[in-house]
Amino acid sequence: MADPWQECMDCAVALAKKAGEIIRGALKEEITVMTKSSPADLVTETDQKVENFIISSIKEKYPSHSFIGEESVAAGEGSILTDNPTWIIDPIDGTTNFVHRFPFVAVSIGFVVNKKIEFGIVYSCVEDKLYTARKGKGAFCNGQKLQVSGQEDITKSLLVTELGSNRDPETIKIVLSNMERLLSIPIHGIRAVGTAAVNMCLVATGGADAYYEMGIHCWDMAGAGIIITEAGGVLLDVSGGPFDLMSRRIIAASSRAIGERIAKALQIIPLKRDDATN
Amino acid sequence: MADPWQECMDCAVALAKKAGEIIRGALKEEITVMTKSSPADLVTETDQKVENFIISSIKEKYPSHSFIGEESVAAGEGSILTDNPTWIIDPIDGTTNFVHRFPFVAVSIGFVVNKKIEFGIVYSCVEDKLYTARKGKGAFCNGQKLQVSGQEDITKSLLVTELGSNRDPETIKIVLSNMERLLSIPIHGIRAVGTAAVNMCLVATGGADAYYEMGIHCWDMAGAGIIITEAGGVLLDVSGGPFDLMSRRIIAASSRAIGERIAKALQIIPLKRDDATN
Repeated sequence: MADPWQECMDCAVALAKKAGEIIRGALKEEITVMTKSSPADLVTETDQKVENFIISSIKEKYPSHSFIGEESVAAGEGSILTDNPTWIIDPIDGTTNFVHRFPFVAVSIGFVVNKKIEFGIVYSCVEDKLYTARKGKGAFCNGQKLQVSGQEDITKSLLVTELGSNRDPETIKIVLSNMERLLSIPIHGIRAVGTAAVNMCLVATGGADAYYEMGIHCWDMAGAGIIITEAGGVLLDVSGGPFDLMSRRIIAASSRAIGERIAKALQIIPLKRDDATN
Repeated sequence: MADPWQECMDCAVALAKKAGEIIRGALKEEITVMTKSSPADLVTETDQKVENFIISSIKEKYPSHSFIGEESVAAGEGSILTDNPTWIIDPIDGTTNFVHRFPFVAVSIGFVVNKKIEFGIVYSCVEDKLYTARKGKGAFCNGQKLQVSGQEDITKSLLVTELGSNRDPETIKIVLSNMERLLSIPIHGIRAVGTAAVNMCLVATGGADAYYEMGIHCWDMAGAGIIITEAGGVLLDVSGGPFDLMSRRIIAASSRAIGERIAKALQIIPLKRDDATN
């Protein structure tokens, strides 16, 4: 039987590349910055323009499909995940990087059916690295097959995470205290390139052994999530339990052992789910 | 008058490129890891091999020059900076990245005469980005002229720093508490790619507004230091006073205003200088 979603994936790849071109063009122009939930939660016209471009292009081809997009949700649309084929889109993952022209900016598209990710695309457009994964068919970067490191020993691990855009003093304290606990295990180090999607793709390449974060959204994780699992990695909740795409938290690890050890170290930040109805 | 050091600079560029080739080759092979001052302070045979290659090549051409190299110092050689023309070399800046194949690994060469940096080369060899600067002649990346952002408003800034390889609990606490103070100003964010030299070059490109760190060494700063100043940035000590190459601490900023604001926020970590004699 032909793959029922391959045509959608081909469409997503083409749109991500085209979106990346728009973003690269915008990086050469003046960027006007607005803020959302905090002085560090930024958005630009390009985020909105790229999301509109992607969603309108898909809607034309697949009018019955559903959409969850970062900027549509910011504009008041819901983010309830149903069983319907759903495109989960972050037009610019790493908006702060985009604003500063820090060279890690990604277009992220995840495609979910019956609440399972079928494929994911992360296009790190300044580096021109196109990460893709189709369920059961492996993960690739610019056509080269990806494989996580498989590292199981936390004391030999390199982690990626972010300090985040929340500037609530209590949240900052927990974020830093989690880093302290991990560094003290000890681990080799922590890196932060400023986008969840690229951080996760770096785990998929084997360049880092795990990524964890709390406070991100389904559109930060849907594209890269399947890139991790198809590269041989595991997705866990920060509690160590099963990963939940709408929970706003994730551990993406090269092995279950590393993922569970990180979960043991983390103090949990209380968060409203992406699909909370109030 | 012809530039007396241009020939040395041409030699440094050629050696950095050749060293980058050796490193890229080594990334395809098995990497054997040893530790130095802490379980997170790593070294490999490639660090030593690349440093030997660079220093022996220069010595042949310039037998009267002096050398300070990371691995030579680790092997017991001194690191006293005199007025003699001195090559300051980090064969692999980002050894932990190298070990993990995290894609930011740089060869750093700084050339100092009468204790002033005359030129600097940072070759980020996985990205194939060659950063160069000659005193009074500007800074370049792959031939393109660099300019810092010029940002003066700390609340609109993106910073780069590192968590470092020191695993002493008190040091970790100060490193994290400094991040807390800066995030709370608030600032846009903090990034960490795992090499001082590349972090500084990112400031030189305008992609980040400042870099600060304590605990690094002259070989982490000598190459990139002049790339910052030739791109229009400033170097300061973490106290806000004048930068001192042997002090193991730095603020490299896109403007004096940002640099001084960071200095005001930082709690200082006590460190033995690179040129301490006991």
